[in-house]
Amino acid sequence: MTEPRYTPLVRSLPATVPFVGPETQERQRGAPFTARLGANESLFGPSPKAIAAMQAEAAEIWKYGDAESYDLRQALAARHAIAPENIMVGEGIDGLLGYLVRLLVSEGDAVVTSEGAYPTFNYHVAGFGGVLHKVAYVDDREDPATLFAKAGEVGAKLVYLANPDNPMGSWHSGADIAAALDSLPEGALLVLDEAYVEFAPEGTAAPIAADDPRVIRMRTFSKAYGMAGARVGYAIAAPELITAFNKVRNHFGMNRFAQAGALAALLDQDWLAHVQTEVAAARHRIAEIARDNGLTTLPSATNFVAVDCGADGAFAKSVLDGLVERGVFVRMPFAAPQNRCIRVSCGRPQDLDAFAAALPEALKQVRG
Amino acid sequence: MTEPRYTPLVRSLPATVPFVGPETQERQRGAPFTARLGANESLFGPSPKAIAAMQAEAAEIWKYGDAESYDLRQALAARHAIAPENIMVGEGIDGLLGYLVRLLVSEGDAVVTSEGAYPTFNYHVAGFGGVLHKVAYVDDREDPATLFAKAGEVGAKLVYLANPDNPMGSWHSGADIAAALDSLPEGALLVLDEAYVEFAPEGTAAPIAADDPRVIRMRTFSKAYGMAGARVGYAIAAPELITAFNKVRNHFGMNRFAQAGALAALLDQDWLAHVQTEVAAARHRIAEIARDNGLTTLPSATNFVAVDCGADGAFAKSVLDGLVERGVFVRMPFAAPQNRCIRVSCGRPQDLDAFAAALPEALKQVRG
Repeated sequence: MTEPRYTPLVRSLPATVPFVGPETQERQRGAPFTARLGANESLFGPSPKAIAAMQAEAAEIWKYGDAESYDLRQALAARHAIAPENIMVGEGIDGLLGYLVRLLVSEGDAVVTSEGAYPTFNYHVAGFGGVLHKVAYVDDREDPATLFAKAGEVGAKLVYLANPDNPMGSWHSGADIAAALDSLPEGALLVLDEAYVEFAPEGTAAPIAADDPRVIRMRTFSKAYGMAGARVGYAIAAPELITAFNKVRNHFGMNRFAQAGALAALLDQDWLAHVQTEVAAARHRIAEIARDNGLTTLPSATNFVAVDCGADGAFAKSVLDGLVERGVFVRMPFAAPQNRCIRVSCGRPQDLDAFAAALPEALKQVRG
Repeated sequence: MTEPRYTPLVRSLPATVPFVGPETQERQRGAPFTARLGANESLFGPSPKAIAAMQAEAAEIWKYGDAESYDLRQALAARHAIAPENIMVGEGIDGLLGYLVRLLVSEGDAVVTSEGAYPTFNYHVAGFGGVLHKVAYVDDREDPATLFAKAGEVGAKLVYLANPDNPMGSWHSGADIAAALDSLPEGALLVLDEAYVEFAPEGTAAPIAADDPRVIRMRTFSKAYGMAGARVGYAIAAPELITAFNKVRNHFGMNRFAQAGALAALLDQDWLAHVQTEVAAARHRIAEIARDNGLTTLPSATNFVAVDCGADGAFAKSVLDGLVERGVFVRMPFAAPQNRCIRVSCGRPQDLDAFAAALPEALKQVRG
């Protein structure tokens, strides 16, 4: 027997992972990390009410989850003052992006994103045979005007824009995003990834109607709600597009505790406010630590801070390696010139203490 | 703006769900079910150790799960006496089947299954544009000889066979499955779905080497391990095929408590033995209830029993509707002549009491 008859597309794909996980790195280095500051997880944890809800649901795990995520969609609809028909709940934004790309992208179809933006989106586009066109950041921000111009030029079906941005933490006002839509070319759908928007200044969430057929918006419980390991994201879009997900999604794919935990987390907005406060303090602390080491930081509307190491990507990579060696898990942007930075997630005081202790040593080692 | 530019394949797909979930049915009928006996969930629940492990992990849910499911794969490898490289953990068998179909099936590719076998597999095949060829059950069993002959005739890339079978509960010995592989045509990969094998007589699991390139085997924590809502399944196959999943899967898609719970469940084989005993007793009880109502049952190697209603599909459907009206959630086979039956999951005594109470009334109503 020969090997399985993979599709031609699959044969052309590398078996790569968009990110190497911290557990994999820990196994490789033979020791756990002291500070887990690389994946923009919320070290402040989920709402205690969400923890309690998940624990209560554990004994019910013999039941499949509700295929419609009905209760969660009702609560999200109330929270956003939109209809449940505007909402699709899925296995994190990663899962939803995969479904969305599959709905729109056949082999050879054009898609536009920024050089250095979210690799998992790129992974999905490549996985369905799409052709990625990348534009540069402008002043360390993803730039709607450049993105939409490129989309017109190549006839893109999809355009990806994260606001706030990962990995730089930069942002546009929601009003600017909404205004830019006027230049989105006909036939292009904007994927507006607002995974970090709960950390951003008021007015960053784009004032776009849920029914607007030009945009699909992505939100998540992985960041501000502290539930990355639960895998709950949701998309907001016109009902027709939301319904189309039912053609391809894994209908019974949602974990039952994740649904229960997300619902409880959503209803505990006091905890969200607490996390927002902690994150703001941590951003400030990271900036201080950087300054103490002669480095600068970029303004951030997220739960992480890009620390400008003041030289090129190779230099920043060496700093990163020095931190990782010392048990501090961080990541960095993939593309120049953003890769002059390392990206440090907002942690608790003890996590940032570890960062503060390791950074001078890492810098000393690199500076020789 | 026109609607999003869906792919031609997506345009051709209906927005259907393979199954209507019990929660959806409860919302439609405006009342909860008294007995949830329709989805072959394990009403005996997961191991208390798995519940404790999941509850302990709830506070850690701010972390993404391990993208490699390393600990679980190690434990599964030890349990099956195979290498971790032979194992892919995924979001239930449903999720793994989706990835597998995507790896192999392009538009127009032939796939073979049995008429009335697992609809979610068919959903995935249709979703990637595959052409399904269906063969009939033989004596209420999926028939390897017929399936493999059809695969040769149509040049199938994939052949689906569940052993034991769902929805009939029938089975072949593992030795017979292994022997039948000699007639599997070159270029066809057998998907051997063993979701229910823990309930089957000794010798039902097929004695096929994990490295055999002709077969990929599917197992789950949703049935005997009582964790349907956690979404943990695994595939066993040759390392090359396992690695190929890394080209398309959602690498960070596994829920963190699901990983912890599955590991604890796997290590509690005493609980598994307890569930096997309870299921055997419940099968016996379902047969008694059927007999008390003048009906027969099919032998079962699963955690459900096909109850032969003694007439055609319309009759069985009326019996089913009568049970559902009375708060007893059950399902039934989709295809004739198997649809002369209703399918009743093994429940606790109180669940089967509800079935025993509702069945005579439902039959009386139908018999008029």
